[in-house]
Amino acid sequence: MNIGILGLGTVGSGVIKIFQENNELIKKRTGEEVSIKKVLVRDPSKSRAVKVDNKLLTTDPGEILDDPDIDIVVEVIGGIDPTLDYVLRAIENKKHVVTANKEMMAKEGWRILSLAKSRGVDVYYEASVAGGIPIIRPMKESLTANRIDEIIGIINGTTNYILTKMAHEGREYADVLKEAQQLGYAEADPTSDVEGYDARYKLAILATLAFGARIDVMDIYTEGITKISKIDIKYADELGYAIKLLAIGRQRSDGLELRVHPALINKSHPLAQVNDVFNGIFIKGNAIGEIMLYGRGAGQMPTASAVVADIIDIIRNIKTGTVNRVESQYDESIPVIDMNCIVSKYYIRIRVKDRPGVMASIAKAFGDHGVSLQSIIQKDVKGEEAEIVLLTHDIMEKCVSDALVEVRLLPAVVKVENIIREIR
Amino acid sequence: MNIGILGLGTVGSGVIKIFQENNELIKKRTGEEVSIKKVLVRDPSKSRAVKVDNKLLTTDPGEILDDPDIDIVVEVIGGIDPTLDYVLRAIENKKHVVTANKEMMAKEGWRILSLAKSRGVDVYYEASVAGGIPIIRPMKESLTANRIDEIIGIINGTTNYILTKMAHEGREYADVLKEAQQLGYAEADPTSDVEGYDARYKLAILATLAFGARIDVMDIYTEGITKISKIDIKYADELGYAIKLLAIGRQRSDGLELRVHPALINKSHPLAQVNDVFNGIFIKGNAIGEIMLYGRGAGQMPTASAVVADIIDIIRNIKTGTVNRVESQYDESIPVIDMNCIVSKYYIRIRVKDRPGVMASIAKAFGDHGVSLQSIIQKDVKGEEAEIVLLTHDIMEKCVSDALVEVRLLPAVVKVENIIREIR
Repeated sequence: MNIGILGLGTVGSGVIKIFQENNELIKKRTGEEVSIKKVLVRDPSKSRAVKVDNKLLTTDPGEILDDPDIDIVVEVIGGIDPTLDYVLRAIENKKHVVTANKEMMAKEGWRILSLAKSRGVDVYYEASVAGGIPIIRPMKESLTANRIDEIIGIINGTTNYILTKMAHEGREYADVLKEAQQLGYAEADPTSDVEGYDARYKLAILATLAFGARIDVMDIYTEGITKISKIDIKYADELGYAIKLLAIGRQRSDGLELRVHPALINKSHPLAQVNDVFNGIFIKGNAIGEIMLYGRGAGQMPTASAVVADIIDIIRNIKTGTVNRVESQYDESIPVIDMNCIVSKYYIRIRVKDRPGVMASIAKAFGDHGVSLQSIIQKDVKGEEAEIVLLTHDIMEKCVSDALVEVRLLPAVVKVENIIREIR
Repeated sequence: MNIGILGLGTVGSGVIKIFQENNELIKKRTGEEVSIKKVLVRDPSKSRAVKVDNKLLTTDPGEILDDPDIDIVVEVIGGIDPTLDYVLRAIENKKHVVTANKEMMAKEGWRILSLAKSRGVDVYYEASVAGGIPIIRPMKESLTANRIDEIIGIINGTTNYILTKMAHEGREYADVLKEAQQLGYAEADPTSDVEGYDARYKLAILATLAFGARIDVMDIYTEGITKISKIDIKYADELGYAIKLLAIGRQRSDGLELRVHPALINKSHPLAQVNDVFNGIFIKGNAIGEIMLYGRGAGQMPTASAVVADIIDIIRNIKTGTVNRVESQYDESIPVIDMNCIVSKYYIRIRVKDRPGVMASIAKAFGDHGVSLQSIIQKDVKGEEAEIVLLTHDIMEKCVSDALVEVRLLPAVVKVENIIREIR
């Protein structure tokens, strides 16, 4: 079997490392000699952390995409341009594809998979979500007896690392972000992670698998962690919650809830104990009940582990003459529910003037919009100002937004500092 | 596609329920109409919690095993006799088999799978370990790029429920067992669960998948939870540990460590947070690092979820003309390491006469056998007796056993109350 690899960055090097270190095992498990025939790189003269025969390197994608001897193309470049064209060309040329590309699978997965079906090849993408943690394959195979009701994931390691450090060490966001960048856990431009875009791509992929729906990533409400302060984490902790960046997909009778945002989650929930760079994906099915899959959601070797597992699976397919065993479902008629219509508890932190009757006036403003409060607690008093933290009962988001318009106009209210949804 | 089911107990009824409740989904996911053609029962007149057309019931296994119209035989009777014969006959007759039978797969898996290979059919057994939690398929497919170094599981829900209740409510074993029996979490004869035999079968199956070894279940050292007292749980807690019944498989250069026993596990370990009837399986691979799979390891619907997922997978195989995609490895040459040669920390609780010099004499006895102590703490004093709890450094089991022979002979020692291994 011959493999061509597009890209020799972190993940590509990891794939080669695994083939070097676990070669005997892989031979045993596939019954085949697997050989890496070509690797597409930008600069063949660059020195690399992994040993690769220089003759394997090429700067011409055609040497991989159009080589009839190559059975499997491994795409580990990332992004859409020019990657999507490469992948479509490989499929046109009847090559199986393994990809780690979340953005491409989230946006163009339906197109890639339908072309693959028509050309009689497979496209596997286990590494696109949560690194090495088995999740794509469980969704496609292990959980098929279930109607999936809910999938909630901590699927971005960078933000989970930041939130964990903020919680455990009582530090502020900017401070921890800087450290994460120094440690290589966050990129120089952290936008995609901290604003939740990375998690959004992954949720789109998971939601398609869970609900059989074609998802437009722009339909996923997305909010990052940049507004979370250490004081929110402290107050949440006192209320019995952790704060995590969650990717949430829920099936309701009227459509799908799809959202990525920081959320209060009860400390007894398994996801609340997923810390540091670890990922966890919590799934509820109508037969299986609750399960959680946990592990390293990123990093060179965990991600490469998923890529190589996909390669091995495809080799087994080729050997047994199998293709397109699992049909992809991309139902376009399933609606995404407007965020105004989700129901949740809300944590709201408000800075007020420290004078009598403030709590009553705030409670009344909420009450007038049908928002009843579970608790309202005055915290820190500083000079003439105080901080109030309140937790609502379950209520529709629209009611909370409407109430907040009025709350902001109250003379005693200085600022609504933060609003964080709760999740159960 | 026609299915025959052997057995209509808890799991069998669950399988039928899923086909009733999720019928549309299953049709979508397989593209096939699946029909249950016959169900083997002992007593067709018995009233049942699930609606089944009486014409489907039969007391003659031949009506399923020898019916050429039946494609897949689902075995949910359990045990070896007569089940193994049924399964082998189904395979001889070229039927695919789905089974939830841990004892049969642990003891006779190699025989069943090799016959299946020669007859060109598949045998799937996801439900045999940890109910609905995806574990067999991840081991066979998702983790194949890895050398698996370690697999540690909480894979018996009954004992985990008992230990959790003992820990959270400070109750004794016998008391909680009784309650578990009333709740249906423990059987009238709880031996198989509380003595660790159930976990042993499951570990044998997992170890075969993880290490490619043929395992004799009797080679797995097995110790149950009946000797664990609430006082051990309290002392362990004070030392920073939870006590869990663990099934441990480890690859060492000289062979495999295979053992089931209660163990101290650091509270920060993900397995320490697996509580109540939940199961968790923690795996270390040389590429993926650490992952954990978590969920309900037993119960009607979670187990049936795994059975039906296997059925769906086999239907997909049949539709795409696939068979024997994944080779089973049953290497008989991999040795199992003697328990005397494992290395661990040990928690030891000793009742002594409360007099000066006791701790010194005990520490000396251990020291003489090369066992150095991490801590030695005097606990409860009652009358003329006191309790001492000690924690050793890492040491070979043989040295601890030898030291304990001498410790037991010390005049000040009343009784060595308990010895519990630590696991990291």
